[in-house]
Amino acid sequence: MTAGPEEQSGLTALARGLSAPKGFVDASLAAPAPGTIRLLGGIPAPAALPVEAIGKASAQLWQAPDAAVASLQYSPARGSAALCDWIAKREGVDPSRIVVTNGGMHGLALAVLTVVERGATVAVDDPVFPGFLWALEVSTTRTLPVPVVADGFDVEHLARRLATGARVAAAYTVPDFHNPAQVSLSAPKRQALIELAERYGFYVIVDNPYRELRFAGQDQGVAVFNQSDRAIHVNTFTKTLGPGWRVGWLVLPDHLVDPVIRLRNRLDVHTSSVAQAIIERLLTDDADWFDGIVRGATALYEERAGVLIDALQEQLPGALDIVAPEGGLFLWPRLTDDAVDPAALFQRAAAHGVIYQPGEFFAADPRRRSSARHLRLSYSDRTPEELREAVRRLALAF
Amino acid sequence: MTAGPEEQSGLTALARGLSAPKGFVDASLAAPAPGTIRLLGGIPAPAALPVEAIGKASAQLWQAPDAAVASLQYSPARGSAALCDWIAKREGVDPSRIVVTNGGMHGLALAVLTVVERGATVAVDDPVFPGFLWALEVSTTRTLPVPVVADGFDVEHLARRLATGARVAAAYTVPDFHNPAQVSLSAPKRQALIELAERYGFYVIVDNPYRELRFAGQDQGVAVFNQSDRAIHVNTFTKTLGPGWRVGWLVLPDHLVDPVIRLRNRLDVHTSSVAQAIIERLLTDDADWFDGIVRGATALYEERAGVLIDALQEQLPGALDIVAPEGGLFLWPRLTDDAVDPAALFQRAAAHGVIYQPGEFFAADPRRRSSARHLRLSYSDRTPEELREAVRRLALAF
Repeated sequence: MTAGPEEQSGLTALARGLSAPKGFVDASLAAPAPGTIRLLGGIPAPAALPVEAIGKASAQLWQAPDAAVASLQYSPARGSAALCDWIAKREGVDPSRIVVTNGGMHGLALAVLTVVERGATVAVDDPVFPGFLWALEVSTTRTLPVPVVADGFDVEHLARRLATGARVAAAYTVPDFHNPAQVSLSAPKRQALIELAERYGFYVIVDNPYRELRFAGQDQGVAVFNQSDRAIHVNTFTKTLGPGWRVGWLVLPDHLVDPVIRLRNRLDVHTSSVAQAIIERLLTDDADWFDGIVRGATALYEERAGVLIDALQEQLPGALDIVAPEGGLFLWPRLTDDAVDPAALFQRAAAHGVIYQPGEFFAADPRRRSSARHLRLSYSDRTPEELREAVRRLALAF
Repeated sequence: MTAGPEEQSGLTALARGLSAPKGFVDASLAAPAPGTIRLLGGIPAPAALPVEAIGKASAQLWQAPDAAVASLQYSPARGSAALCDWIAKREGVDPSRIVVTNGGMHGLALAVLTVVERGATVAVDDPVFPGFLWALEVSTTRTLPVPVVADGFDVEHLARRLATGARVAAAYTVPDFHNPAQVSLSAPKRQALIELAERYGFYVIVDNPYRELRFAGQDQGVAVFNQSDRAIHVNTFTKTLGPGWRVGWLVLPDHLVDPVIRLRNRLDVHTSSVAQAIIERLLTDDADWFDGIVRGATALYEERAGVLIDALQEQLPGALDIVAPEGGLFLWPRLTDDAVDPAALFQRAAAHGVIYQPGEFFAADPRRRSSARHLRLSYSDRTPEELREAVRRLALAF
């Protein structure tokens, strides 16, 4: 079998338009030198994953003949009733507005395919979670980058662009513990963003995987999103129960429920009934269980964020502008010295055995150079000892 | 929250183009009168699902700390290495050509999005698995129906249409134990179909969920598909280990591997690592296990097919043309008496407490009336007693 350009011509415009992997899945990052400490991904700490409880719930499932067989058969495209009910209660919405997805990225892809016409423009966070830009490529590569400032997505910036004629099909933002910029969108700006969406008739794609992981500050609320006909609220169990499940959910406006179900039913029928059955058992057998898991994980991430910040301030005094995160999995420090070349720093750090995501990777607007002055340091899946050693190595690179 | 036409206008052309549920998911079928016997879906028999073995494999997984944590984390977009290896060996191809999917429908959707341009024409089985036409709507509603005859997809018919100017992006067929028509595509016609695809530059989407379930006749082979640059071979564990897993696979030509992975990575990152980890353990801990499961299931389906045919011949002598199936989950008998109105028969049968899929539901070409003369009777998930009672009720309806 050989493949030449003549075979390639059989690809759809959609398939031809998808860019090749980079960044997170770059081979040089995926296979670092042995002993390298990776501060790379938004990955839950192994210690925060409730393996023992999962094992118990799973054993109960397989020992209950009817439930076991049901979990091996087809289940509703929208998700299992009990799981939808639990999620709906937590989100404060009617269960009919929940669609269970195969994780957050699936929710983003469904949102994009449903409301972003091919070639349309989408306002996006800048810096932005690059995974969204990849998902967006199934519909478009046209973006309107909107700066993420200290209190999140700059709604006024978007309002000015819209007032002067720009039009968008959707606006994308991570409102809680932004990836990569750590900040949260303030309550007044949430309201303002929704009002803007209602005025101009676009959708807000609200990507909220870190929402549960708060260890400081005030919750800015999601009711404004969940009460709007213009918001698609995307969430997932990835950062709490683990990415491996591939189970997340959408909170949809009523009028988008049927279109999204029609689409997801065609793409893969429904989310794994087995995965849903185990998670449903975990969540509903003990109504306090999930909050306990979240508390444990959050305490762990708070400790690790603290260790990382302390080490950076000790080992690299003045080298980085650091804002203490209020939650989530990332630190987004800024290089204070303009003479430091971030690309060279990254290379030296890798040579000293520590890798992270260079800020440039998250730039939505290549003309804006501000992201490139940042490092994204993920502290979630490294122990305090590893974090201290990582900073020691980073200091050598400076 | 209210939804009016003005909100609907925010939907993409893709979302607007997806038809509403019907047939399998029609509410009148989904909620039949209590006590109704359903001969509806291609659903595995509960007795054929290896619940005990799954419970054991699952317990081993959650008791192995490293494997448990790995199954809760991200895994490769193409599927876990051990699972790809097992599948590749069974398919007789290099593991690099396997992509693990969320079941067969997901494989079909990925194939369509990758090689069927929007608005293109696709040659399809007639009668056809309607689920494929639904999946196809993500790209097109234009089909070229090709009759399914005693030895499967009528390749000569397609060849004549192509010779007189018709052009297709792909041809879709279920080669083994066709749904709904039970037949299998003969080996010479498999070869002829691939040669046609190579000559005219289209892809063959080979949908093969029933392949393992043979209880009579000769295997016509899949090597011709797996050796071609023009075939996308779609398979799944749905009919053997259960639909609830949502785990299947594609065998792809080399040049389609990267495009399909790029697409599936965007749509939902990867198939559930948890589901893959349990299935992988089942398949690899004992190399003979899967064949044993298949043998047990196949014996069960052979018995049930026999019970159904015997009962039909006893209770309804001469009313139906019946071909004994060589495998799979369906019987596709034809009404012999042209005076029998199939729609009225279906209504009377439902009133007597038995429902099945009317043949008309599977017609790819509405002008061809032949499918409407058939009933699709699924025998897989009904006991022999239920099948005999179902036929007794059907006889009352005649």
